[in-house]
Amino acid sequence: MFQKAVIVGLGLIGSSVARIIRLRRLALRLVGVDASVDVCKQVRALQLVDEVSSDLAAAVVGADLVVLAVPVGTIESVVEIIRDHLAEGTLLTDVGSVKSTVSAIFEARVAAKVHCVPAHPIAGTEHSGPQAGFAELFENRWCILTPLERTDPDAVNRLKTFWERCGSKVEIMTAQHHDLVLGITSHLPHLIAYTIVGTANDLESELKSEVIKYSAGGFRDFTRIAASNPTMWRDIFLSNRTAVMDLLRRFGDDLSRLQTAIEEGDGELLIDVFTRTREIRNAIVDSGQA
Amino acid sequence: MFQKAVIVGLGLIGSSVARIIRLRRLALRLVGVDASVDVCKQVRALQLVDEVSSDLAAAVVGADLVVLAVPVGTIESVVEIIRDHLAEGTLLTDVGSVKSTVSAIFEARVAAKVHCVPAHPIAGTEHSGPQAGFAELFENRWCILTPLERTDPDAVNRLKTFWERCGSKVEIMTAQHHDLVLGITSHLPHLIAYTIVGTANDLESELKSEVIKYSAGGFRDFTRIAASNPTMWRDIFLSNRTAVMDLLRRFGDDLSRLQTAIEEGDGELLIDVFTRTREIRNAIVDSGQA
Repeated sequence: MFQKAVIVGLGLIGSSVARIIRLRRLALRLVGVDASVDVCKQVRALQLVDEVSSDLAAAVVGADLVVLAVPVGTIESVVEIIRDHLAEGTLLTDVGSVKSTVSAIFEARVAAKVHCVPAHPIAGTEHSGPQAGFAELFENRWCILTPLERTDPDAVNRLKTFWERCGSKVEIMTAQHHDLVLGITSHLPHLIAYTIVGTANDLESELKSEVIKYSAGGFRDFTRIAASNPTMWRDIFLSNRTAVMDLLRRFGDDLSRLQTAIEEGDGELLIDVFTRTREIRNAIVDSGQA
Repeated sequence: MFQKAVIVGLGLIGSSVARIIRLRRLALRLVGVDASVDVCKQVRALQLVDEVSSDLAAAVVGADLVVLAVPVGTIESVVEIIRDHLAEGTLLTDVGSVKSTVSAIFEARVAAKVHCVPAHPIAGTEHSGPQAGFAELFENRWCILTPLERTDPDAVNRLKTFWERCGSKVEIMTAQHHDLVLGITSHLPHLIAYTIVGTANDLESELKSEVIKYSAGGFRDFTRIAASNPTMWRDIFLSNRTAVMDLLRRFGDDLSRLQTAIEEGDGELLIDVFTRTREIRNAIVDSGQA
């Protein structure tokens, strides 16, 4: 599909993209770039790419596909470094969990020169780094593309085909809509999980060890979510601030309502809420997403 | 181990206890009681017990083990019905997720006559009803016993052996301590999950269908937790009100702190919290609870 693909950032997602490009032969030549000497060493040992480089500007020269797999907060500085070295007509994309900020950066800095298609493969695990990646990560998962208004439809289609070859189901929507939907399905849940695990973490140490021991009651699921990459998640919350704040307010109101119901012994309200939440689970099970 | 075991309530937990009693031959005769005609019919069809009854008072006559597997809010009325029909020396226990209220009911109503050992097997799924149960549910899971002060140590040991034969690891603690620990590991997480899924449920229908579609980002895990039995959970929150309210206040404070950090762009605080939450996950993985 591509002559020279360059992946910038070789963590969980970037290294998984590298693996699937290799496996499905989606590029003739594959170059991986990472700022960390340690990550570069691991990627070399794992033989994930044809060439490992820490020279970002030089690496992208002659590439027809550049995938930015760095935290959202790093995208701007990476674009700044590579923009003058990208060939015209290059397909530039990313894998970030927030799309409005990335779209704005692409639009302002580089969209006049190359084809920009911000993208978000909804896939991941709680583990980080190149050793955590695997080629099947995107299999049967959604990948959302949020092309800029000016983006050439052919470029969008090329990236769509790319992600389909990676095993994903592809949808196209606006960056703003993506950020609202993912705010609910991912960002708010992560913030809540980080909070509750943080609350437990602040307990006196004896109680904390018991929380770990008896974590099976529900808490354990939160700790898995709250074990995700800290830098990545800091950037997500700061980048999708508006949507997250709005959702957090709604969540806070709903929590207060339940809190009052518990305080006042209003069992009917509780049953009502708990019965309706079951329906959403059933819909997820019915849709094959469970 | 027992001549006649009676299980009151044949939902997920009660029917699983019935299955393991049968499988491991822990009682010569096994009687199941449920107020629901439909549940009784299912239990008969599944052949889980020797006798299915809807006559609670008659069923417990001559039993040396009575297991109450009804929602915590129903325990008091069940005890009221059976107390005059229990033989002296019967071992009376339950499987509820809140122990202080159950202990108080046992102490006040029936502890002078029979051996009371409130218990909580920390096991379950998001499914309900007798068809959802299975004999392996308690395998390698914790079961916490919270005997009353006056309970005969021999009775405690008998119940400990019973749960060990069911495959569980048994711990003994006070009811108050149990309720605090489970408040953190189970009750608060469930309340939060119910809230966030309820928040999503209130969205306009188009957005809701997208939330279901893209639920893999974290939300999905919450929906599984928030699909648990509504009556059971109403009773848990109302029974463990004090601990849940206290934990909710701490959680609310911690959430406000993160909210402010996001609003003010304080990335350092976010990284700090997100890094420390990872440690709890690692401790859970290290302890083999993951």
